[in-house]
Formats: sequence, structure tokens, C-alpha cells
Amino acid sequence: MLETLNTRRSVRAFKSDPIPEKYIRDILEAAMNAPSAGDERAWQFVILKEQALREEYAKLNRNVPSIRQSPVAIVICGDTSREKYPGLYVYDCGAATENILLAIHAKGLGGFWGHVFPETVANNRTLLNLPEYIIPYSVVPFGIPLNGLPPAKTRYDESRIHLNGW
Amino acid sequence: MLETLNTRRSVRAFKSDPIPEKYIRDILEAAMNAPSAGDERAWQFVILKEQALREEYAKLNRNVPSIRQSPVAIVICGDTSREKYPGLYVYDCGAATENILLAIHAKGLGGFWGHVFPETVANNRTLLNLPEYIIPYSVVPFGIPLNGLPPAKTRYDESRIHLNGW
Repeated sequence: MLETLNTRRSVRAFKSDPIPEKYIRDILEAAMNAPSAGDERAWQFVILKEQALREEYAKLNRNVPSIRQSPVAIVICGDTSREKYPGLYVYDCGAATENILLAIHAKGLGGFWGHVFPETVANNRTLLNLPEYIIPYSVVPFGIPLNGLPPAKTRYDESRIHLNGW
Repeated sequence: MLETLNTRRSVRAFKSDPIPEKYIRDILEAAMNAPSAGDERAWQFVILKEQALREEYAKLNRNVPSIRQSPVAIVICGDTSREKYPGLYVYDCGAATENILLAIHAKGLGGFWGHVFPETVANNRTLLNLPEYIIPYSVVPFGIPLNGLPPAKTRYDESRIHLNGW
């Protein structure tokens, strides 16, 4: 398990092979078993498969061009109607996104954490037909890595650790 | 690995036994191998071990009373001086916090995600002697679970999944 945490790397180039439904389900299950504030689970998941939709998504979100190649992508959204504590959906969605990336890696697939920047939220909402109370948070394109998995190199850095205060 | 993702649960009651240094190091390594925006790694980690400090922390942060019992806690902080994209430290710190919780679980320990609420940021900064550019984001108390690990129950919920739009 620690190895999975330590060897995950961002993958941004994909083969076009489709991903089995069971894999997508398992990845979403891991997402929904993430911790959330007061167990509120203020998340929703939009699965992008249609090629035309992914092409359109790439046009509206310039930071994720490889969503054109990836056979599937998950848009992780905050559901403000389910928040117990206003604004904490960002914690829930962050934990869910990381679980998605780890589950992708555990399956031998690759993907990366694409941000939904504030200036593209409205475009995301229109394209994906999201209600006003849903806030797109991140997008994870994934698939079989085109060039295998990048080698792991630990980023452990002792200078970031402070004992009993700064 | 998927099992670790799916069986992690919040643990809030701890034995007072100290945690081996090697475990703490491994948990921090997993944190620092989390993804971050543009690989900026805008995080810092403050380790709370001293009993008096943890007592004081509990007084200032009413949502984490069990930090009094846990032999150790990690305060995950955003380092705004390292951000490539202003404000994205919250993504980095969210992924690092989730990796910490998963590494704790992988070690057979227990812990939980404590929020640092906006109204306690200033108090955290004073108590921990944090520079102005450091923003405390979350706190994870951990240790040996007092009552074993809570049973796992999946939270998979198909109604949260939307194909090709809402």
C-alpha cells in the first residue's frame, strides 16, 4: 500500500483502448470511501466518455488537452446542497480526487489531477448541464499509459518537517 | 491497495503508546509523494508531540479534543511562498492529508482529518510560531486505536454517478 502511495505519478498520454466498466466502478467506489467533513459526502461524479464531449471539454479547459485521448475522464464536483459546513466540499472533493488517482494507479492505469479553474466553472456547468448548486472541482482523465509508467522518485524532503512548532 | 482505500475509517480514540519514528517518517514520505499543482509541493508539516502543546492546541481548536490523547499529530500547512498558482495550495494539502490518512491506515494505526477552520488560523499561527506565508490547513491526530479499527462499510452510491453530463 505504501508503495502505491509512493509510486503514483501523473500520466498525461494515453492509448485509446476502452477501460472495463468494472474498473471504472472500482475507481468510483474508492472515491466514495474517502473521508468527508462530518461524513457529509458532498460530492458528485460526472463520467465523460463520448469523444465529442471530451473534445468540447478540452476546448473549454485549456489545461487538460489530453482529455481528447483518454478514453474516459471523471469530473469531480462539489454538491453544496449536501454540505453540513458551508465551503467544506473542497475537502471532500480533494480526498475523493486523490483516492481516484490512487485507485487508477492500483489498477495499472494512469491519469492526472486536472484543476477546474474558477474562470471555467460556468463553462463546465453549461457543457455538463450541472445544476447551480453543483461546483465542478477537478477532472481526472485516465486510461492505459501510452508510454508505460514514469519511474518513481521519492519527494521526501526533511526540510518540510517541523517538530513542535516552526 | 483498493482494500486499504475502502477500509480506512476515522479513529478518534487512542492508546497513549508512542509511535515509532520510522512510522512517522514513512507517513510523511507518503504525504510528500502526493500530487501537487504543477509539482509545486506547497506544503509544510508541523509534528506535535509535546503533551503540553497538544493540550494547548485542543483548547484553541475545539473540533479536535482527542489530540490530547493521541501521542502525535501532524498539522498540514500550505506554503504560499511556493505556490505556482495562487490559492492552489489547498489542492496540494488535500492530497497530502489523504495520503497521510491512508499511510496511517496501512500501518495499522488510526487517525482522522481535523479541519483548521478560518477562525482558528491566527491562533494556530501564534501557537505554532508559523510565518505569515504559512496557512494551517488540516490536523491529523493519530496513534494506536483504543478500541481497534471500526468495521468497513462501503459508501458506494450509484446515484452520485452521471454519465456524459447531469
